[in-house]
Amino acid sequence: MRLRNIPGAEEYLIADKQYFVAEPVSHKGNWKAVFGNDQPIHAEFGTGKGKFITTLAELNPDINYIGVEYQAVVLFKALKRVEKRKLPNLRFILFDVNETETAFAEGDLQRIFLNFVDPWPKSRHAKRRLTHRRFIAMFRKVLGLSGEIHVKTDNRPLFEFTLNEFAEINLKMKNISLDLAQDTTFENVTTEYEEKFMRKGHPIFRLEAGFRE
Amino acid sequence: MRLRNIPGAEEYLIADKQYFVAEPVSHKGNWKAVFGNDQPIHAEFGTGKGKFITTLAELNPDINYIGVEYQAVVLFKALKRVEKRKLPNLRFILFDVNETETAFAEGDLQRIFLNFVDPWPKSRHAKRRLTHRRFIAMFRKVLGLSGEIHVKTDNRPLFEFTLNEFAEINLKMKNISLDLAQDTTFENVTTEYEEKFMRKGHPIFRLEAGFRE
Repeated sequence: MRLRNIPGAEEYLIADKQYFVAEPVSHKGNWKAVFGNDQPIHAEFGTGKGKFITTLAELNPDINYIGVEYQAVVLFKALKRVEKRKLPNLRFILFDVNETETAFAEGDLQRIFLNFVDPWPKSRHAKRRLTHRRFIAMFRKVLGLSGEIHVKTDNRPLFEFTLNEFAEINLKMKNISLDLAQDTTFENVTTEYEEKFMRKGHPIFRLEAGFRE
Repeated sequence: MRLRNIPGAEEYLIADKQYFVAEPVSHKGNWKAVFGNDQPIHAEFGTGKGKFITTLAELNPDINYIGVEYQAVVLFKALKRVEKRKLPNLRFILFDVNETETAFAEGDLQRIFLNFVDPWPKSRHAKRRLTHRRFIAMFRKVLGLSGEIHVKTDNRPLFEFTLNEFAEINLKMKNISLDLAQDTTFENVTTEYEEKFMRKGHPIFRLEAGFRE
């Protein structure tokens, strides 16, 4: 998601004391202290304007949520969305997913959501897709063996790549859906992007993946 | 596929000496003798009018093929298609897939193709889908550890079911395609049914699966 620059966006983030965590690397191995409790922590990598993670934080007060976004102007919108509310189980960080291991130690996170991530359609860019094995290996380190990765996308080639990649590195996949709108067993929390695509009648793909010993 | 009765279809099959194998159970454990060589044997379960298996037999003379079909009137059409040709690596049997183990012993087959099988859309009929674990366990017995199952369908719910089922029983999936028409890496041999659907622009789904120890 690209937005035009918003003067003062970064300053706004830094001034926020309720939701914004300014130095994520300083909390590595100790994220529970940020929330002040022992609840599981789920993170969304590429949180955008934060609709998905904010809705989950409202629905599930017994889970802590971290929205991870690397563009200040986008994260600014996410914070604006919640500034008048009280969601003690929600935090946002301005962060590059490539640096995941500098901010999170094994077991800091219990689940990672990858929603509508950049599909990088050219094969020579496959390594940049967040479901590429090099990212999954990184995520495995911070999630530990019992952690889960939940993927949602409207991009058929990205989902196809993801299925093949996860099968090849032998992840334990489940709840695979090839058309989430038809899936009545799953209570779907949507992103802004997703709603736009669903209205157009495009299928949304989804899966959950865990690790094997 | 349902066709109206063709008088004499069964008699025609039995009279055929080139392609039709009348008593498949008598060849259990010894299918190589039917072909008179040691080539690998690939079978299509639900072969219909035989376009797919016949094309493969022409393309790959070093592989033996068995088309399995349980309706005599359908198999009659398949035999009619090839009666004027010489394809020593092709056979057809009139057979119910539920009886697989009565006709094939471990290692008799190296690959099973499941093309556009009945999707049995109602969940209470899930057990009848040929990609249900009870059939896969049966196929595993005749394929041995190194055998493969290749699935192709235009039915999204069936493919979704298949992905989840195969993931859950820990098959080794590869070459998963969510739109075969877009897949340039794979040389696709089509069935009659498939061509009709592709012309309508429907995506065709495909995967290959193997076994783990």
